[in-house]
Amino acid sequence: MIERMIEMKVLAIDTSNHPMSVALVEDDQLLATTTLNMVRNHSIYLMPTIDQLVQLVQWTPADIDRVVVAQGPGSYTGIRIAATTAKTLADTLKIDLVGVSSLEVVARNVLPGSEQVIVPFFDARRGNVFAGAYQWQEGQLVSLIADQHLAMTTLLDQLARVDRPVILLGHMTKRLNDQVNALPANVTLAPRAYGIPSTYQLALAGESRPAAQAIDPFVPHYLRITEAEANWQKLHPGENKQNYVREV
Amino acid sequence: MIERMIEMKVLAIDTSNHPMSVALVEDDQLLATTTLNMVRNHSIYLMPTIDQLVQLVQWTPADIDRVVVAQGPGSYTGIRIAATTAKTLADTLKIDLVGVSSLEVVARNVLPGSEQVIVPFFDARRGNVFAGAYQWQEGQLVSLIADQHLAMTTLLDQLARVDRPVILLGHMTKRLNDQVNALPANVTLAPRAYGIPSTYQLALAGESRPAAQAIDPFVPHYLRITEAEANWQKLHPGENKQNYVREV
Repeated sequence: MIERMIEMKVLAIDTSNHPMSVALVEDDQLLATTTLNMVRNHSIYLMPTIDQLVQLVQWTPADIDRVVVAQGPGSYTGIRIAATTAKTLADTLKIDLVGVSSLEVVARNVLPGSEQVIVPFFDARRGNVFAGAYQWQEGQLVSLIADQHLAMTTLLDQLARVDRPVILLGHMTKRLNDQVNALPANVTLAPRAYGIPSTYQLALAGESRPAAQAIDPFVPHYLRITEAEANWQKLHPGENKQNYVREV
Repeated sequence: MIERMIEMKVLAIDTSNHPMSVALVEDDQLLATTTLNMVRNHSIYLMPTIDQLVQLVQWTPADIDRVVVAQGPGSYTGIRIAATTAKTLADTLKIDLVGVSSLEVVARNVLPGSEQVIVPFFDARRGNVFAGAYQWQEGQLVSLIADQHLAMTTLLDQLARVDRPVILLGHMTKRLNDQVNALPANVTLAPRAYGIPSTYQLALAGESRPAAQAIDPFVPHYLRITEAEANWQKLHPGENKQNYVREV
């Protein structure tokens, strides 16, 4: 009856997509969280939000044991902001850094015990999405299909061949909806509210996971190359991206 | 494929229990939300949090169409703070006021489509809980058993007789856990994180509901009398509470 107990103070950050969210979690208890879902400039609001919440719960930065960050996929700028902020804090405070898939965080909105295949997705523009497939198995959320970048129509074709009910979690934007004629019979789209990631869930997922061995090599999960990189590769077919860009 | 669209700017408030939470929702989109779960003095933080979020999303108070409040059950002080704040705002701004069961808000953490009986509960002290039973039926969350105040052991006895799987949502505090030998075979306790109410869900629930016809008679759902009232009734058996207390 007593739930698991990990003694840990966690700062969780997610700016992978449209929502910017911060949570402070102690053991399995949420202490404070703020989610802003209308500002595009996450870089302006992220540190002030962290600062405000840390003050409200009367922590000092030295109290934090671990930073957990939604590592992507998502918006390039978004996942770079979160990863860079998390790395800087982990390095400065000499604390653990843990990355969790941004899609997995959304999948955790479905309660353990559900037998559905859980498919969170984010709009990746041009008719594409980032998506993964997850399932609860004996209280553990298991990845069935790794997070990937693919056309919405391809995703739905794949899901139509799954022999179980599938729940889609995400925001069916107008531009995605335009790609979709109808959902396969075994696929249900959850109401939009269930596609918003919870940084409380992010923190809990990151509490029980091994920390990154080193902070420097920690990079976001982009899962695709940028348009600029694609254009560069077309113009410079012999070169590789290490020549001109360093991932952060 | 296109989700329902209600054109409405909503302020949602929940201070029924330990968490204090505020959300601003436009149509079906979350704009901003903050949840504080460590302060007991909700009255200090509620208005500043509302003020800060309204500024962040660049609303003016006059933009708000509707106040939705978690109406109880819960802590006496908590539901009075939320109801009084919501009534004052609705009266001052001349806007709609809607109350939603605090337990129903938690039930909405379970995705539509689930066939389980959903039983949210709050610790009401002395081995008692507030609890209700809900179920998703054709996309609507239906109340199966009205919210009530009862002993945790009585609740579990009742749930053992339900012929379907039941999911309990709430925080099994140590003092509640001490009352419980084992859960009935058909009952599962969800991880604690799924027992935290979402004011985003509160706002959505309140968007599609008729507003209170008048603001003055709007009162919290206490579902029990206070200790002070019980003691008074013992000492003054002939009197009724209208003699000495006015509900707010």
